Amino acid sequence: MNTIGNTFRLTTFGESHGAAVGGTIDGCPAGLLLDEAFIISELTRRRLGDQPSTLTTSRSEPDQVEWLSGVFQGKTLGTPLTFIVRNQDCRSSDYDALRTCYRPGHADYTTQQKYGYRDHRGGGRSSGRETVARVVAGSVAKQLLKREGVTITASSQQHLVSCIIKGVHAGLGDPIFDRLNARLAFAVMSIPSAMSFSMGETPDCYKLDSFNFPDAWCAYGEGENLTATNHCGGVQGGISNGMPIIFHVGFHPPVTNPDGMICRQEDGSLEKVAPHGRHDAEHFQRLPVIVESMAAITLADLYKF
Amino acid sequence: MNTIGNTFRLTTFGESHGAAVGGTIDGCPAGLLLDEAFIISELTRRRLGDQPSTLTTSRSEPDQVEWLSGVFQGKTLGTPLTFIVRNQDCRSSDYDALRTCYRPGHADYTTQQKYGYRDHRGGGRSSGRETVARVVAGSVAKQLLKREGVTITASSQQHLVSCIIKGVHAGLGDPIFDRLNARLAFAVMSIPSAMSFSMGETPDCYKLDSFNFPDAWCAYGEGENLTATNHCGGVQGGISNGMPIIFHVGFHPPVTNPDGMICRQEDGSLEKVAPHGRHDAEHFQRLPVIVESMAAITLADLYKF
Amino acid sequence: MNTIGNTFRLTTFGESHGAAVGGTIDGCPAGLLLDEAFIISELTRRRLGDQPSTLTTSRSEPDQVEWLSGVFQGKTLGTPLTFIVRNQDCRSSDYDALRTCYRPGHADYTTQQKYGYRDHRGGGRSSGRETVARVVAGSVAKQLLKREGVTITASSQQHLVSCIIKGVHAGLGDPIFDRLNARLAFAVMSIPSAMSFSMGETPDCYKLDSFNFPDAWCAYGEGENLTATNHCGGVQGGISNGMPIIFHVGFHPPVTNPDGMICRQEDGSLEKVAPHGRHDAEHFQRLPVIVESMAAITLADLYKF
Amino acid sequence: MNTIGNTFRLTTFGESHGAAVGGTIDGCPAGLLLDEAFIISELTRRRLGDQPSTLTTSRSEPDQVEWLSGVFQGKTLGTPLTFIVRNQDCRSSDYDALRTCYRPGHADYTTQQKYGYRDHRGGGRSSGRETVARVVAGSVAKQLLKREGVTITASSQQHLVSCIIKGVHAGLGDPIFDRLNARLAFAVMSIPSAMSFSMGETPDCYKLDSFNFPDAWCAYGEGENLTATNHCGGVQGGISNGMPIIFHVGFHPPVTNPDGMICRQEDGSLEKVAPHGRHDAEHFQRLPVIVESMAAITLADLYKF
Repeated sequence: MNTIGNTFRLTTFGESHGAAVGGTIDGCPAGLLLDEAFIISELTRRRLGDQPSTLTTSRSEPDQVEWLSGVFQGKTLGTPLTFIVRNQDCRSSDYDALRTCYRPGHADYTTQQKYGYRDHRGGGRSSGRETVARVVAGSVAKQLLKREGVTITASSQQHLVSCIIKGVHAGLGDPIFDRLNARLAFAVMSIPSAMSFSMGETPDCYKLDSFNFPDAWCAYGEGENLTATNHCGGVQGGISNGMPIIFHVGFHPPVTNPDGMICRQEDGSLEKVAPHGRHDAEHFQRLPVIVESMAAITLADLYKF
Repeated sequence: MNTIGNTFRLTTFGESHGAAVGGTIDGCPAGLLLDEAFIISELTRRRLGDQPSTLTTSRSEPDQVEWLSGVFQGKTLGTPLTFIVRNQDCRSSDYDALRTCYRPGHADYTTQQKYGYRDHRGGGRSSGRETVARVVAGSVAKQLLKREGVTITASSQQHLVSCIIKGVHAGLGDPIFDRLNARLAFAVMSIPSAMSFSMGETPDCYKLDSFNFPDAWCAYGEGENLTATNHCGGVQGGISNGMPIIFHVGFHPPVTNPDGMICRQEDGSLEKVAPHGRHDAEHFQRLPVIVESMAAITLADLYKF
Repeated sequence: MNTIGNTFRLTTFGESHGAAVGGTIDGCPAGLLLDEAFIISELTRRRLGDQPSTLTTSRSEPDQVEWLSGVFQGKTLGTPLTFIVRNQDCRSSDYDALRTCYRPGHADYTTQQKYGYRDHRGGGRSSGRETVARVVAGSVAKQLLKREGVTITASSQQHLVSCIIKGVHAGLGDPIFDRLNARLAFAVMSIPSAMSFSMGETPDCYKLDSFNFPDAWCAYGEGENLTATNHCGGVQGGISNGMPIIFHVGFHPPVTNPDGMICRQEDGSLEKVAPHGRHDAEHFQRLPVIVESMAAITLADLYKF
Repeated sequence: MNTIGNTFRLTTFGESHGAAVGGTIDGCPAGLLLDEAFIISELTRRRLGDQPSTLTTSRSEPDQVEWLSGVFQGKTLGTPLTFIVRNQDCRSSDYDALRTCYRPGHADYTTQQKYGYRDHRGGGRSSGRETVARVVAGSVAKQLLKREGVTITASSQQHLVSCIIKGVHAGLGDPIFDRLNARLAFAVMSIPSAMSFSMGETPDCYKLDSFNFPDAWCAYGEGENLTATNHCGGVQGGISNGMPIIFHVGFHPPVTNPDGMICRQEDGSLEKVAPHGRHDAEHFQRLPVIVESMAAITLADLYKF
């Protein structure tokens, strides 16, 4: 289904070349003054990346967020917050060649197998454009978490997005299935092109031996001074221990090939299809804000506001 | 909470030194003839590992599964299947030294922070013993999946458990949050000591470039012959494509140190505590059946039986 | 929260004097040709009642449904269906007198107690206008159920809306909590102003004695001929038996008094407030389509399409 | 499924002639001292009714509750509380005549239609014996609610069980689907033999007209003095207003006929079957504690403990 979360719950909707993409946040407490400038700045990070090239910035107009419900005189009502971003500049005919074929590395084939019917234009529902809704919801979640003293920062080096969350008190999470690390893994592995997830100070520190892996206690330490190292990434037995929460996400490269692709026709034969749509040179630069958003949505769901 | 799944749903319960550990499976279809010998053999894999040493096998008696509900004359009724395994051989006094202190690398401290009250004996709820219930449920799930032609095999090399799932038809999973890869990541990251998860033929194949990462179609290929490589691990856009589903899980080493540990007292001071309980030399050998079980539970939840 | 259902799941949003009311249907199967004329006709029943007076029909323009996602070339995609109906003709200033007071019989006071902040205009989120979304979703559900041979008909006599569902096969529902009768009770008791619910051929037939209450079997009877009477209303032990499903819902009268009301001020004092908004003479005529919609949403959630 | 609730969540299991009936409570906070004497007294009310006849009291031994998990030294751990009550005195052969036939008014036929396989002995899963688990969970919920000042009292007059809940603060419940009245309706309509539900001071007070139905405010009134009447039963717009919450539940009479029954054979033919099992003269006397239990479980799920 298209919903994540229990008490802070996001449902997203929309196809990349339909009328709009958007989402509904259910469970946002009443009385939050929405910081729309912050939301726009987060969407800009998603669209242009954290280090936009001059080439990129000239590309297009910012996304316009329209709030349909849940806000009255700038403040949240505690009722569902529904927002949409209209899809503009849809040159659907770009995609006519893809109507009856499946690109390699995309969701075209699997979507057809699952539903038997699809919107072939620009990936339809599976387009990265759906992440607009995640970023809007994430920016609302961040505003709530900020009041609790929680900050979330992700940064990208080619293929590896690392994320650090500070200010989470000890005791958040669950010991069995809904472990904090499992919840975070679920949330970020649901980002398009995510391939790997790992917890810990450095990606492979869990490979230390039994003598060096367990983080040694600091005498009388609390919060960020609880232990001398942070090999466990701030989560023990599925529950936060007060140290910074650190995880890493690996993403595969863009799968749209600017030189064209060998596509599979419905009858199983192969055919070369000319390039179409946009090639995404800033792929990895655009991911940190999405990772942060999914982490924020996950944490907001665990806090009792 | 202590439940995983929606339509094939497992709830586990029990502390390692309480009366019993067990679980309830809700959603198992009626009419399945339970193969109890298979369930016992899976529990033996969990207890002794896949390559038990002679030393290990002499250790203890097999776990005895008692079925409390949901079975009539050997067949499932479609009603909740509740099973328990009694805890035997509980030398709770072994743990007296741990009543007021927190071991490094364990869940003692975070459990106390979350609940304010805990069963200190042998890890309580957070003990690896809870995985007994996962393996029983996993073995039921495997019996259901076997009828659908699905097999699941995991194997372990130090730190890396790799798992391959064959026979899943194209079209299983969801395109947004409940992606098959995200569901699998959630399920296996909920295993005690799991630290990392990755999809794909080999753990790092997602680091290939845009030209080499996308799996090339095989002309007229279907199922396991759909593509020439399997860099995506059988999942595209969150949905299975019919290729084998392949993922890898990294685990940290045992955190119980046979030479004793520097523990944190409730007042924050540190103290060396003598070794206690058992040291687990076969840690990594015991993990594959648990990984398989969580994968089976995840898939059984997605099939419509 | 603002969601009902598991596999056919409706989330509604919107305040009566905000930008729009609407909903998202998640779980509608792909390939359904949406019958928009039928949807409009159902909305008209909601707006004007089943026997509109001439006075009523002149009142206002029909609701316009805008589909934002989930439809491509008139057919559903299997992705979330989001629709909105813009709020028109909002004379919000009508409600200025209600900004700091609570009407008797309305949700003003309880909304303030729960959220601490509210949109006072026209009942805000608690307005009957939210039922627009229920009727749109119900009309989609009816189209799905029609393909399964299921029809739903409700009719109203002052205070009592009776509903009969035909064509449901034996075996739908659950034996413990999620009983079909409990699910229906939940769904219709969530309609604004619903006060009572009862199952059975006639509202009080459950008061028969042990000799006369149990419905006698018809020899070799099936479906609608299974039993000679239908005191149980088509549900035994929480599961449908193939007979028509019959239930009754009682509603309280409109609570907006055309002569003005004694309202409670925020400080607890009382004050007479002049009439405002509209008095709803067709209250009971408008309810059947809403009851049918909630029944359809409930059943669509139980069918595997 | 066999679960009710979200944050205080009960899963029940067990067939009436299987090994045991029982349940798992997930979400009970840590540190509650379980009052086992109270639990036993509630089970006795369930077994013998509120006004047990001398004949009845001699019937059988009390139910013995065995706690399998979640309790340590008498106090809850915050982990799942699993309890079982073993089934004793199972004269299964009493039921041999029912192996291939369906009694009128029972769940035999619908269970067979749904699952295709059933335990015919004593109603199996659909037996009233499952309510043992509801009462145990209800008595835990009552202990939690008692700390919040909430009391629940139900009483029975032939067919009509009335329930009054005192001490619930204003602001509990939800305005759309998860209305407090809808949640209560769902919970009590899931009790075996429940047929009707209504809110309000007296069962039919919602039939008053628009002038008399809305409860008039008391100047400066709070809590139980908020309004002069309580026609709405303490719930406005789905949310509690601080007045006592009052509802009524109607049940059908026992459907086991002491003179024997005309049963339906699997081939559709009819046959008279001699009486079997027990006739339940105290049917209506036994229901109040079950109604209270379901109300307590519902409220405990809404409180944040």
